[in-house]
Amino acid sequence: MKNFRQQQHRPKKNTLVIGRKAVIEAMQSGKQLERIYLQSTVHGEIIDEIRQLAEQYLVPVNKVPVEKLNNFNISNHEGCVALIAKVQYQNLQDIISFIVDKGEAPLFLILDGITDIRNIGGIARSAFCFGVNAIIIPEKGIGALNEDAILTSAGALEKIAICRVNNLMKAVDELHLNGIKVFASEMKATKKIFDVNFKEPCAVIMGSEDMGIHPALLKICDEQFQIPINEDFESLNVSVATGVILYEVAKQRYC
Amino acid sequence: MKNFRQQQHRPKKNTLVIGRKAVIEAMQSGKQLERIYLQSTVHGEIIDEIRQLAEQYLVPVNKVPVEKLNNFNISNHEGCVALIAKVQYQNLQDIISFIVDKGEAPLFLILDGITDIRNIGGIARSAFCFGVNAIIIPEKGIGALNEDAILTSAGALEKIAICRVNNLMKAVDELHLNGIKVFASEMKATKKIFDVNFKEPCAVIMGSEDMGIHPALLKICDEQFQIPINEDFESLNVSVATGVILYEVAKQRYC
Repeated sequence: MKNFRQQQHRPKKNTLVIGRKAVIEAMQSGKQLERIYLQSTVHGEIIDEIRQLAEQYLVPVNKVPVEKLNNFNISNHEGCVALIAKVQYQNLQDIISFIVDKGEAPLFLILDGITDIRNIGGIARSAFCFGVNAIIIPEKGIGALNEDAILTSAGALEKIAICRVNNLMKAVDELHLNGIKVFASEMKATKKIFDVNFKEPCAVIMGSEDMGIHPALLKICDEQFQIPINEDFESLNVSVATGVILYEVAKQRYC
Repeated sequence: MKNFRQQQHRPKKNTLVIGRKAVIEAMQSGKQLERIYLQSTVHGEIIDEIRQLAEQYLVPVNKVPVEKLNNFNISNHEGCVALIAKVQYQNLQDIISFIVDKGEAPLFLILDGITDIRNIGGIARSAFCFGVNAIIIPEKGIGALNEDAILTSAGALEKIAICRVNNLMKAVDELHLNGIKVFASEMKATKKIFDVNFKEPCAVIMGSEDMGIHPALLKICDEQFQIPINEDFESLNVSVATGVILYEVAKQRYC
């Protein structure tokens, strides 16, 4: 990782959309936004419109004190600033259709509650190396896909498709409707990873190291599996575990 | 990795051995030292003795300006301070004999030029999970096995045996003399990882992400192999690659 040091960056002006109308126009023109910051005290029709568009385009909205916005060191923000997305967000159904049209078996990775951006970067790097078609992430509860995450991914986050969805449960439903199986990596599962058939169209869900996968999500998965390891030890790092799983998938599919 | 933040710690006093005689006595009594700092301007018989003992017990010695020693915030250091080792350094031949006596096939991991302590910690965590008997590291050119490395390893560095050797070439010779094959993970190799027979007694060498394995070391290895990945992309992170390799070894050996 070449002595990478995690830092708090203040976003540069050219990575921001500043002001209410500018943010609305950005969304309407198809510009991809990472996040919208709305001053907690602002209200009115135009603010409602921003919220509606944000919901439509799956952009997370954070209510913040005015100090947060002033901290961007800009004037005339009108209580509304958006960060331009650094990654390519794409529509899940579009990607599924594209892969199936090519006659390939889709492979997706779903990240549930993974907040450490170094882990997210490392996972994206492995995902790109092993041919994952897209990474599916929730709108909330995931680390920011910012410059640091891109650096940790060695640039992979800029090359791989990311599907941001407002609800992982609905995303799993959508995968199921498309005939794609959803497998969950779960330490307590009895089935071993190498007994899973990864040749069929599938998605793999990874949970966070401390919390695992959300129980409701686990419940609607088709199968759970574990990577067998030394019983005396807690677990693998989530980025390493993802690499191991994707290696097993690639081996089954291409070797 | 649970929001781990890399920091520069000043070592606590109880992790130091302070003064010339104290350092000599520590080595003679078998106390494991991580590193000795000698003020660059000190000379004489007792300093020669410290150097000789350090060579005998494989403790790296750094010549430093007096400011470095003053920075430890101690008095009477006499130009000589040592850090107490936080991991269990063990003798390579002792470990080989111990494993062979148990009737098992040894598995070692050799780290060549890996300096990022987060990668070292992550590698140690995977090594412990997948049953590696010991990690072999060189005396020089490796990141410090300090509190941060232990934290990143989720404690694995305190549980797994570490063999510190003054020369990796000699360590490979010693492995060969014991009938242990040495395999090198090398991106340009033609042999694929799953075509290597990891069931026999073996060691795997991992090089750094930017430099790879030292050419002279690569030359005396028995076989080179690669993990097949997307040709459009540079490489896996070294900690992830190590996890993938150890998974393949464990799968061949135990499944």
